[in-house]
Amino acid sequence: MEMSNEQIHAVISDSLAGYSYLQSLTPTERAGLMYAVADEIEALDDTLLQTAHRETALPLPRLQGEKGRTVNQWRSYAAALKTGLYAEARIDRGDGAAKADIRKYNKGIGPVAVFGASNFPFAFSTAGGDTASAIAAGCPVVYKEHPGHPATSRLMADAIQRGLAKFGAPKTVFGYLQGSTNAVGEALVVHPVIKAVAFTGSFRGGKALFDLGMSRTEPIPVFAEMGSVNPVIALPVYLQEHAAVLAAQYVGSLTLGVGQFCTNPGLLIVVKGEATTSLKEALRLEIQKVGDATMLHAGICKAYLEGKTTLAAQEHVSLLGEGAPGNGTTAGAAIYATSGRALLQNEVLAHEVFGPTGLLIECDSMNELYDVVRSLDGQLTITLAATAAEAQQNMALLQAAQEKCGRLLFQGMPTGVEVVYGMHHGGPFPATTDSRFTSVGPDAVKRFLRPLSFQNWPDALLPAELQEGNPLKIGRIVDNVYTVN
Amino acid sequence: MEMSNEQIHAVISDSLAGYSYLQSLTPTERAGLMYAVADEIEALDDTLLQTAHRETALPLPRLQGEKGRTVNQWRSYAAALKTGLYAEARIDRGDGAAKADIRKYNKGIGPVAVFGASNFPFAFSTAGGDTASAIAAGCPVVYKEHPGHPATSRLMADAIQRGLAKFGAPKTVFGYLQGSTNAVGEALVVHPVIKAVAFTGSFRGGKALFDLGMSRTEPIPVFAEMGSVNPVIALPVYLQEHAAVLAAQYVGSLTLGVGQFCTNPGLLIVVKGEATTSLKEALRLEIQKVGDATMLHAGICKAYLEGKTTLAAQEHVSLLGEGAPGNGTTAGAAIYATSGRALLQNEVLAHEVFGPTGLLIECDSMNELYDVVRSLDGQLTITLAATAAEAQQNMALLQAAQEKCGRLLFQGMPTGVEVVYGMHHGGPFPATTDSRFTSVGPDAVKRFLRPLSFQNWPDALLPAELQEGNPLKIGRIVDNVYTVN
Repeated sequence: MEMSNEQIHAVISDSLAGYSYLQSLTPTERAGLMYAVADEIEALDDTLLQTAHRETALPLPRLQGEKGRTVNQWRSYAAALKTGLYAEARIDRGDGAAKADIRKYNKGIGPVAVFGASNFPFAFSTAGGDTASAIAAGCPVVYKEHPGHPATSRLMADAIQRGLAKFGAPKTVFGYLQGSTNAVGEALVVHPVIKAVAFTGSFRGGKALFDLGMSRTEPIPVFAEMGSVNPVIALPVYLQEHAAVLAAQYVGSLTLGVGQFCTNPGLLIVVKGEATTSLKEALRLEIQKVGDATMLHAGICKAYLEGKTTLAAQEHVSLLGEGAPGNGTTAGAAIYATSGRALLQNEVLAHEVFGPTGLLIECDSMNELYDVVRSLDGQLTITLAATAAEAQQNMALLQAAQEKCGRLLFQGMPTGVEVVYGMHHGGPFPATTDSRFTSVGPDAVKRFLRPLSFQNWPDALLPAELQEGNPLKIGRIVDNVYTVN
Repeated sequence: MEMSNEQIHAVISDSLAGYSYLQSLTPTERAGLMYAVADEIEALDDTLLQTAHRETALPLPRLQGEKGRTVNQWRSYAAALKTGLYAEARIDRGDGAAKADIRKYNKGIGPVAVFGASNFPFAFSTAGGDTASAIAAGCPVVYKEHPGHPATSRLMADAIQRGLAKFGAPKTVFGYLQGSTNAVGEALVVHPVIKAVAFTGSFRGGKALFDLGMSRTEPIPVFAEMGSVNPVIALPVYLQEHAAVLAAQYVGSLTLGVGQFCTNPGLLIVVKGEATTSLKEALRLEIQKVGDATMLHAGICKAYLEGKTTLAAQEHVSLLGEGAPGNGTTAGAAIYATSGRALLQNEVLAHEVFGPTGLLIECDSMNELYDVVRSLDGQLTITLAATAAEAQQNMALLQAAQEKCGRLLFQGMPTGVEVVYGMHHGGPFPATTDSRFTSVGPDAVKRFLRPLSFQNWPDALLPAELQEGNPLKIGRIVDNVYTVN
């Protein structure tokens, strides 16, 4: 059922009441609200998993794990909130005369529009990290239902509402927009009440929302995480010793979840040599073991098959190995091979093919490998498969890689994005529209805050974060010194 | 002399070398570089002041003070940098198995384009806060010379270069673009090497640069501080007791520096009543004392006179009082009066007139005053002239004001922007293009940083900020706990 324009407008406008309510809570109280929501999500039964399984084809154990991750996001962001970290309170007491008393903290920016991802129906959707971090920041959310999993979205939305009700919060803290058309999302982004947008999905979708947000009379921050090819760079000495292990790890990561992760390692970059022959053979053997599988929905599968066909048709690209072929509605895994020179001359080779297809890039020399890395677009992750000594000897490569990504791995594989303070899930454009913010980990809260200074205010009228007695016992910079007293 | 396109391109491209250099320094070393630059600015003699005075008509004592402020910016941002605050180091050690070791810190985003302001030839220009905070962040600067004070700009640029040379840093840390045309600035903003833009000036100029930055293939952050009308809201009880004091303060702030401050209080909002009669009389007497004065340059004076004429010509606007009339090349101060209803019906009344012209808005009721506040555009500052009891009784007004500004004052006047941690010099659009960042105070550094995570790296290859032994002795969040060990 599509909502009328009036209904859409009403839901968005009502979020202002939710904003006023959230602003009236202390961080500790907001954390309490978040725990209440987390409990309701945790309490959802098998119906949720079955519904999501039916809508997304994701396996039940994976969905069970993702549900736990989602609950953990609400709880860990709430815990971070309680520390007062995100208030970033700064107090300059002045001198009672010419030098003013100036105190600053961060407050929620206003209502946030959230768009869910097809590949994470829980953790990056209705009650996902964007919603949890916006509410942690004191911002109500208006969520646009994802057409790939509407029934799942509604079960989650109901759980959020139950949590809000139990805590005593108004419904307007979380608004829900039904509708399968782009027009609903566009109406949301351009609405003057909305002050920020969070999105996880394709480059095309994310960039369109970004452009829309920037074209408003009042431009607003648009955080779009749009994926990347997450290159793995394997250096010669490491490769010589670990070709078989690397091949197994790479194919495992490439085909995990039918390759439907933002951090899926689409490129494997090496220098041609003795070791690459065994690497190629190992990759061929590993990929052969992979069965075909159902993707999230027919549209994604179609796009995958087209992307694979486009890649295979490029000059200087050959098939290295493949798994069980798909039947037209399932996806078959594959690894192609090309040269460093070909990649440098044809940007299509570095485009993301969303799904279980990888591309091995054999460079003629370390110099060419450096050039390949310098030619890369912005990435969520880059992985260096090297010995410590090799990494040490290639500090310039490390520097170049740092400029191109948000997370740099030493060995291992990039899939698996932990919900911790240290995580940066983001990266230079076009991986995201704003390299300065993460969408995973408590720091995701920072996206929805803005500072406000109070000059010469009576103590009783200041927010608790800034009162002289520090009632919340949070860390603050007072007269240039960090203090928790 | 205009630079050729080749020369412009070369200066911008060279900043990459400056970036590599800055990235190779620890925060403590970057602070040392900043102290060296500060010393060279401090050592500039009377020639600087005379040159700036000739180019901007600003009085010598004001310029002397602004020079001190500029030196202080370099030194205080350097001191803040040394604390490690801006690294925002987070360490999650993992479990040595499935749970990875993930460490994150902030690094410089890349070369930054800086555009100076006409009204602050030192503190918001060549060696101003934008340049100081970019370099503190580890980002080289390419500065576009301001056409209003090119000779001053070059003296400052030379001082920066002397500081860099003394420290042993390459010239490429600070690039300088000559040229009076917009084309030079445009070439700078669209250059792929540039990763952020800082600007202080008019709405038209700032918004044009913002749109240019967003239209790039790779959009980049554009921080434009575009000024505002900084409303002062005087409540009845306060007004009854302090009409004369408030009038003197208001006219003093309105005409300070010929009204050429971003925080100039263009609007004075009151509820019509007994006290407003004496306020009006006091304002009339105060403004009469103000002499005419020379503005920064002929273009600004012309725009001021046009703005004043436009305001005076609006329906329901009357002249309340004025100072010595200008002679066509000087600016005369004036205060106009209108009603709350007129302001609500005619947005022109709330537009900034850059210069010493104010507008008194008499509302019919507190309700109308609330409506006026809710109708305001985003502001750098809002000031509440009220007793503590009145403020307490009008919390909804305080809430509404908070949504509209970056700094909220209790009594006093908004001119005077202190360089302290607690300062937020910014505010919702159209005061700035990004309400989340300040351009004054050490936190200005945050504009030019982005996070980078390191996963499972050998300790020796990590940046000092993230090494296990914490060699920089900075505050970090380690396994969820803030620690300085």
